[in-house]
Amino acid sequence: MLIHSAGQLLTISGSSQRGHALGDLGIIENGAVLIEDDLIVAVGPSDEMCAIYAGEETLDASGRVVMPGLVDPHTHAVWAGDRAAEFEMRIQGKTYLEIMLAGGGIASTVRKTRSASLDDLLAETRPRLRRMFAHGTTTAEVKSGYGLEIETEIKMLEAILALDAEGPIELAPTFLGAHAIPPEYKVHPHGYTDLICNEMLPAIKEWAVSRRQWAGDRSQSPTTNNQLTDLPFTDVFCETGAFSLEQSRQILETARDLGFPLKIHADEFDNLGGAALAAELGAVSADHLVVTSEEDITALGASSTVAVSLPCTPFGLAEGSYTPAKDFLDANCLLAIATDINPGTAWCESMQFTITLACRYLRLTPAQAIVAATLNAAAAIGRADRIGSLDPGKQADLLILDVPDYRHLGYRIGGNLVQTVIKKGIVYTLYPLPSNS
Amino acid sequence: MLIHSAGQLLTISGSSQRGHALGDLGIIENGAVLIEDDLIVAVGPSDEMCAIYAGEETLDASGRVVMPGLVDPHTHAVWAGDRAAEFEMRIQGKTYLEIMLAGGGIASTVRKTRSASLDDLLAETRPRLRRMFAHGTTTAEVKSGYGLEIETEIKMLEAILALDAEGPIELAPTFLGAHAIPPEYKVHPHGYTDLICNEMLPAIKEWAVSRRQWAGDRSQSPTTNNQLTDLPFTDVFCETGAFSLEQSRQILETARDLGFPLKIHADEFDNLGGAALAAELGAVSADHLVVTSEEDITALGASSTVAVSLPCTPFGLAEGSYTPAKDFLDANCLLAIATDINPGTAWCESMQFTITLACRYLRLTPAQAIVAATLNAAAAIGRADRIGSLDPGKQADLLILDVPDYRHLGYRIGGNLVQTVIKKGIVYTLYPLPSNS
Repeated sequence: MLIHSAGQLLTISGSSQRGHALGDLGIIENGAVLIEDDLIVAVGPSDEMCAIYAGEETLDASGRVVMPGLVDPHTHAVWAGDRAAEFEMRIQGKTYLEIMLAGGGIASTVRKTRSASLDDLLAETRPRLRRMFAHGTTTAEVKSGYGLEIETEIKMLEAILALDAEGPIELAPTFLGAHAIPPEYKVHPHGYTDLICNEMLPAIKEWAVSRRQWAGDRSQSPTTNNQLTDLPFTDVFCETGAFSLEQSRQILETARDLGFPLKIHADEFDNLGGAALAAELGAVSADHLVVTSEEDITALGASSTVAVSLPCTPFGLAEGSYTPAKDFLDANCLLAIATDINPGTAWCESMQFTITLACRYLRLTPAQAIVAATLNAAAAIGRADRIGSLDPGKQADLLILDVPDYRHLGYRIGGNLVQTVIKKGIVYTLYPLPSNS
Repeated sequence: MLIHSAGQLLTISGSSQRGHALGDLGIIENGAVLIEDDLIVAVGPSDEMCAIYAGEETLDASGRVVMPGLVDPHTHAVWAGDRAAEFEMRIQGKTYLEIMLAGGGIASTVRKTRSASLDDLLAETRPRLRRMFAHGTTTAEVKSGYGLEIETEIKMLEAILALDAEGPIELAPTFLGAHAIPPEYKVHPHGYTDLICNEMLPAIKEWAVSRRQWAGDRSQSPTTNNQLTDLPFTDVFCETGAFSLEQSRQILETARDLGFPLKIHADEFDNLGGAALAAELGAVSADHLVVTSEEDITALGASSTVAVSLPCTPFGLAEGSYTPAKDFLDANCLLAIATDINPGTAWCESMQFTITLACRYLRLTPAQAIVAATLNAAAAIGRADRIGSLDPGKQADLLILDVPDYRHLGYRIGGNLVQTVIKKGIVYTLYPLPSNS
């Protein structure tokens, strides 16, 4: 199938974009993409492509923008229940303690996720993933972390695998047992770190190896979800009130030694040194990065670790502090953005809205934000070799936006510009406007 | 037709809500609404309603929220062209002057709107209105103001009437000849004020009276768009660099004497006294209100003028200052919110996103923001007697939201929670999730 755009074709061709090189969209005006099955076969100017591939079925995207599917590299999309009441309390000025005492906070999501069956969890999560897909996210990372005990953590990972198998959105799993200290360990939090290292990580590895449907058989297929590794990412929330730098190191080093690829939540509220730890350990990404120190930014810039900014979270909390993106670009970092969708601080299903925020509060240009949400986001989940750009050999994950210029991403606020999502070569038509039934 | 909700039915019954009385949703748990043709006939608990109206066709909204359609009382939705390039320049730190010199700013929209045909204008605006409708806006005010000369101003008003007639979204027209000083009057801006008063307003009145399709025939129908008045609103941008307080008074008093209902843009950047002028002249609304003085807030609170906050505009500009909503509630004001959709500062088609902002930056609770976006928004366009709540006799404009609790409006960020829009009794099903074509 030949997708022909008489508007802008954003190829974002080449390697992940570092520092101020961020924002090279590789635009072909009047470009076309040839897809065969689930892969991109050729990209080039429409007139040449149409001459070479004259017999192909054609999808006309005249006057529209064609670009790679959006990649959301940091989500907590699997959970049970909601925290709408807690949101209202927060707006009314209630303190964190008052919210806790009223049964709110992450503990409430942990309680509901523990008591949900796998089927409940799938039913609650499915509409979220569909809306993410409808807003143009073709691949997303999803974390466990509302179990904080082995059984529920594995139930969450099972949910991620099952939803990935359902599609159309493709999911990359992360084990985040170190999301918070569970209530039963409040009196001896070090015990929970030991539990993660001594029992949970080995059990997750054993479980992962046993899941042949994704660790084994599917790795033989060109559409496997796991060309990076057989194991999910291991992630730690390195923050005051969660895991200290020392505990984070203990967990991440144990995970690394077991063969897990690494991620970290760092510097959302306090600078504990998590970003430098990520760089030192060769983590795939370090995420949040609001109050990162200059040295830690420098360390990230000298590493292969992708810096992932999550602007929906300070927005969700109505806080004024965002990732100082310019400092990260000055330090030659690989910068990506993600929704951080979660039931507490940021129930946002739209990477388009994340781009809107990144332009305003990270001061990224639309072009920079788009690369941060595609190719660099793919790098943040270790998949830049397979998704994130329109290059021959990559997976056929594309969007057709109903706009004449890519800068409408960022410029426009709170809507959905996607007209068509193409995932692994399959065409999904979206956003049919109101129909009178 | 009986719409049955096993979840929350938000009636928002009663009069517009002043001061801290804002936020009374009149919730009926397990409520139902009976619609006949385009009107609401009865509202009550489902069990009673189902018993009384047993033979009626039923629409099941089990577990979902049913509420009045959203009303957007301040938009500039009709324009030609876009300003995506200007947005990028702004992000890159270019000054207002540099943007002007590059051909940007409101002058660029005026140029394109002047040169667009009526058909062009309809074709460019129609998708915006459809997306607004898809996000739950069942009625919107729309302003002229990109003509700044009589011919184009009337072309814009003709576009508003034509698009209103097309439906399904219902539009209330406003004449905003006093939006900016047109380039040809930069050397003698007072001359433009005189032109508005001496030539444009009389011409707009003559045109309006001649438009029997809305000023005459349709006023006989229960679904007329003009039960308020035969004339559109007259609005003035009272701001440094636009129209002074004295010029604003001259224009609004002339309009009032001709029988126009009044609106004003006041206190977006500078406090010139426009809000108190609105209160004094009995304007239907005063809009923006970011830097309003205490005296002016007090004057609004003692008047029937609705205070309309436009949080998408400071958000769009990434500015930190929003309407101090608490001060307006303390002063017993009627508070409403609107998108201010326009091609320069805030291309936002979603009143849902406006609610999301209002909760975070105006510190309204979800309940307060919802009333500000329905019943009080209807009052801000003089239509609270006909729309904005689910009361028998009002127009059958309703939404079914795919959420279990109304607080998901506000809590959730950047998506679309609407499942069904009912406009004048006609059911529109929305947001079918991705379909594989």
